[in-house]
Amino acid sequence: MSTTSRQILLASRPHGEPTAANFSIVDTPVAAPGPDQVLLKIRYLSLDPYMRGRMNDGKSYSAPVPVGGVMEGGTVAEVVSSNSDRFRPGDIVLSHSGWQSHALADAKDLRKVDPTSAPISTAVGVLGMPGMTAYTGLLTIGQPKPGETVVVAAATGPVGSAVGQIAKIKGARAVGIAGGADKVRALTEEFGFDVALDHRSPTFAADLKAACPDGIDVYFENVGGHVFDAVFPLLNFFARIPVCGLIAQYNATSLPDGPDRLPLLMRDVLTKRLNFRGFIVRDFADQSKAFFTDMSRWIAEGKVKYREDIVDGLDKAPEAFIGLLKGKNFGKLVVKVG
Amino acid sequence: MSTTSRQILLASRPHGEPTAANFSIVDTPVAAPGPDQVLLKIRYLSLDPYMRGRMNDGKSYSAPVPVGGVMEGGTVAEVVSSNSDRFRPGDIVLSHSGWQSHALADAKDLRKVDPTSAPISTAVGVLGMPGMTAYTGLLTIGQPKPGETVVVAAATGPVGSAVGQIAKIKGARAVGIAGGADKVRALTEEFGFDVALDHRSPTFAADLKAACPDGIDVYFENVGGHVFDAVFPLLNFFARIPVCGLIAQYNATSLPDGPDRLPLLMRDVLTKRLNFRGFIVRDFADQSKAFFTDMSRWIAEGKVKYREDIVDGLDKAPEAFIGLLKGKNFGKLVVKVG
Repeated sequence: MSTTSRQILLASRPHGEPTAANFSIVDTPVAAPGPDQVLLKIRYLSLDPYMRGRMNDGKSYSAPVPVGGVMEGGTVAEVVSSNSDRFRPGDIVLSHSGWQSHALADAKDLRKVDPTSAPISTAVGVLGMPGMTAYTGLLTIGQPKPGETVVVAAATGPVGSAVGQIAKIKGARAVGIAGGADKVRALTEEFGFDVALDHRSPTFAADLKAACPDGIDVYFENVGGHVFDAVFPLLNFFARIPVCGLIAQYNATSLPDGPDRLPLLMRDVLTKRLNFRGFIVRDFADQSKAFFTDMSRWIAEGKVKYREDIVDGLDKAPEAFIGLLKGKNFGKLVVKVG
Repeated sequence: MSTTSRQILLASRPHGEPTAANFSIVDTPVAAPGPDQVLLKIRYLSLDPYMRGRMNDGKSYSAPVPVGGVMEGGTVAEVVSSNSDRFRPGDIVLSHSGWQSHALADAKDLRKVDPTSAPISTAVGVLGMPGMTAYTGLLTIGQPKPGETVVVAAATGPVGSAVGQIAKIKGARAVGIAGGADKVRALTEEFGFDVALDHRSPTFAADLKAACPDGIDVYFENVGGHVFDAVFPLLNFFARIPVCGLIAQYNATSLPDGPDRLPLLMRDVLTKRLNFRGFIVRDFADQSKAFFTDMSRWIAEGKVKYREDIVDGLDKAPEAFIGLLKGKNFGKLVVKVG
């Protein structure tokens, strides 16, 4: 009995915003698992902003997806057949199988997911990469202290919502930024932010200033663009800026017109002793156990809430991903594959 | 017997490069010391790039010098008379008396200098603020590891020369940048840098690239400008950039023409996980004992060498300071006041 995997490939590299034409769909036969391999049926595919970077050529923190290759991504999968002692058919695992319906995987690259403790989709959400991005970046680099002001954008997303809620757990004031009235409302009503702002408001910069009367001590940077421009003058002396994403500039094809603000940034780094530090979650892989323990407890205690935006069907992944880059999702964007 | 202090005042705020007209010289009577005060005769005045910032209005890490006020600065002084149990006439102290020949000071603001262990001028040099700036910024933020490449500019200056030599002590490779053949020669022959480069060379950017075949792990930023521009593309993943000075842009009166490179900087902060962190030496005041112990030993062992550029006479301070901002000094610039 042979297996076929439906796959979404990178058909061409986007110039600026990706379009449907940058993706193609194919059905490809999957070989039987070799020694210490398992055959997986993908249940959920995670869609995340970092994938935009993988569509470009050129050096970044990971190799680009080759043109004609399967789009990369984290997945929650069910074991169909196994040549490994560690996994049995029916087991749920976290894999990095990408945008496809079935895949072979080496047992060593898989981590078992307990389907009884939380919905299995959270393994790519609040209990997975996005949640751990928030946890490690905020606590290791941001280091919020009681009474300090923490600002985060894309704040209904899986990273931003966790950042705000962990900031509150640590006694800080959380200011969340999102786009659109529904999301803004959810920030205070659902996620417990102290203040919520709409970055689409024409008075956004003034709104942010009013919302941060004592300035900003931690800005968790995951968007860049005009949100950063509004944040920058409000940064306090000794502010910490963990940088894990710049979604507003991922589609940029050239630098903006001047003036060149690089010297301005450096001046404030010096005079205010700012600390800008980029990171990605795997830099802090050694914190995965502490993260999982803390985050599971906070969810159980009702201190961290999460929201998922589930799209049904692998074929819809390209459209959903294009929307993600425009802020169309509301919560962690996940594709229910099968 | 009344005392007169010759003082150099900030006559007006410079627009761009300071000129002699921004300073004025006056003779002012000094009152007798009150309780717990001492009367000081200034022996050495330290001239440092940060003073340019104090000449501007507006918020920085310290208050500006008021127009008509005595220019600020670190000084090594001799106690003339004392109303404090802690100090006797003839004692040598470190004070922050500014650009003048005599001053009153509160005993609590003074630190005794041992004139038998090193030339007393080093208390504002390699064993003082500049040396400690190098020590704390390099070791706490830069954290050079054996085999890594450390780059520093203004490298014959008191901060840069200490950065390079401490980097060598820690097993790193030290690349020094200076302006002019004499300084470049001193970097390798006198201070032991592995490679020395002239930033005035038309091939400077290419020279730097060739000098750093494995990229740059630590860039100790004290100049900015075109040196930073050459360094930036060579920064390695996880590079650390302690920022303690931007002398190349202190005289700037507007931002350079575009494009706006701020998004470019942020992109590399993210993808390369760079860490930019501003600091000034007093942020690390708790390290002063460790600094003094280590640096004194390194000097005694011949592992750290220093060079002073001593200008004779307080009246020459403005001209010497203007030259400092243009890189005309060679070594730690100190004014022998009396």
